[in-house]
Amino acid sequence: MRTIKPQIEKIVLGIDPGTNVMGYGVLRVMGNKAEMVAMGVINMLKMHDPYLRLGHIFERVTGIIDEYKPDEMAIEAPFFGKNVQSMLKLGRAQGVAIAAAIQRDIPITEYEPKKIKVAITGNGAASKQQVAGMLQRMLHISDDDLHVQMDATDALGAAYCHFLQMGRPSSERRFKSWKDFVNKNAERIKS
Amino acid sequence: MRTIKPQIEKIVLGIDPGTNVMGYGVLRVMGNKAEMVAMGVINMLKMHDPYLRLGHIFERVTGIIDEYKPDEMAIEAPFFGKNVQSMLKLGRAQGVAIAAAIQRDIPITEYEPKKIKVAITGNGAASKQQVAGMLQRMLHISDDDLHVQMDATDALGAAYCHFLQMGRPSSERRFKSWKDFVNKNAERIKS
Repeated sequence: MRTIKPQIEKIVLGIDPGTNVMGYGVLRVMGNKAEMVAMGVINMLKMHDPYLRLGHIFERVTGIIDEYKPDEMAIEAPFFGKNVQSMLKLGRAQGVAIAAAIQRDIPITEYEPKKIKVAITGNGAASKQQVAGMLQRMLHISDDDLHVQMDATDALGAAYCHFLQMGRPSSERRFKSWKDFVNKNAERIKS
Repeated sequence: MRTIKPQIEKIVLGIDPGTNVMGYGVLRVMGNKAEMVAMGVINMLKMHDPYLRLGHIFERVTGIIDEYKPDEMAIEAPFFGKNVQSMLKLGRAQGVAIAAAIQRDIPITEYEPKKIKVAITGNGAASKQQVAGMLQRMLHISDDDLHVQMDATDALGAAYCHFLQMGRPSSERRFKSWKDFVNKNAERIKS
C-alpha cells in the first residue's frame, strides 16, 4: 500500500515598500520547493500627494493579501538611509504596509537588503542584476517577465529569503500574530 | 417666527503618534466653539516587540475612530529628528496611525509641533506646560484630568489647532478622502 504524505502548502508574500515604487512578489512553497505565483510593481511616481501614496500602498497591499491569501509576509527593510527626511518617508511606507498585514493577521518578518543578497547569491554586495538573475534561474522566470518587473525582484527576493529561512531558528525581527498576542496578553494591552 | 439655524457639529480627533507613548484627544466643534470629549494616552513602554507596538497603535486608533466617529483627524508630525533610526521608527508609527484613518476614510491634516504651539499660545517656543495650561483654560479641563493625561495634551493641541484652522485656507499637508480620490481618479490608480 502506498501512502501519500500530505505536503503543507504555504504562500509567502514579499514586499519591498518604497515611497515611489512598491514591489511585491508571491511564492508558493511546498516542502523544500518554491515557485513564483505573481510579481508586480506599484508605481506611485505620478501621485504627488504623499497621503494618496500611503493610501494606495495600504489599499494595494490589502488587495494583494486578499487575492493571494499569504500565510507569511516578508519585508525588505533597510535600517539605514541617507537622511532623516527620507527615513521618515520610508518609515511611513513601511508602517502602512505593516498595518495592512496586521489588519489581516499575517505574520511579518523583516530582512535587511544585505541579508537577502547573501541568502540568494551568497554575496552581500551582489548587484540588483545578480540577485534578479539568480531568482530567475531558481524560479524559472521568463526574460520578458523579469524585464517588465525588474523593480519587483527585491520583493521576490525577500519572499525567497524567507522561504530559505523557514523552519530554521531565526534572529530576524518577526511579528507572529497580533490576534495570538492579544489572546495571550489581554491584560497588557488594556491601556 | 423664529428660525433656528442648524449648527453643524464636527468631531476632530487629534493624534500624537510616538513609538513609546501615543496621545489622543477628541474635540466636539460647533460653529466657533470647541469642547473636549476625551483625551488619553496609550503607553507601549512595556511592549518590547516593535510590531506589537505598531499593531497596538493600529488597533487603538481604529478603536478610537469607531468609538468617536471623527469627521477629521489632525496629526502632530515632527519633520525632523535626531537620527535616521528614530525617524524610521517615528515614520512607522505615523504610517500605522495614518493607515487606520485611511481605512475609515477620515481626512487627515498634519501640523508641525511649532505650528501647534503658535496657534494655541502665540509662541512657537512655548513649553509643553504652557500649551497644556492654555488648553486647560480654553477647554475647561480639570486639574486632575490634565495631570493624569499630560502626555495627551500634544494630541489635543493638534485637534485644537485644526479647529482654529477650520474654514480657512491652509498650507498644511492634507489628505482629504481616499474614496473621493479613487472615484475621481480611477484611471490613475490601476497599476
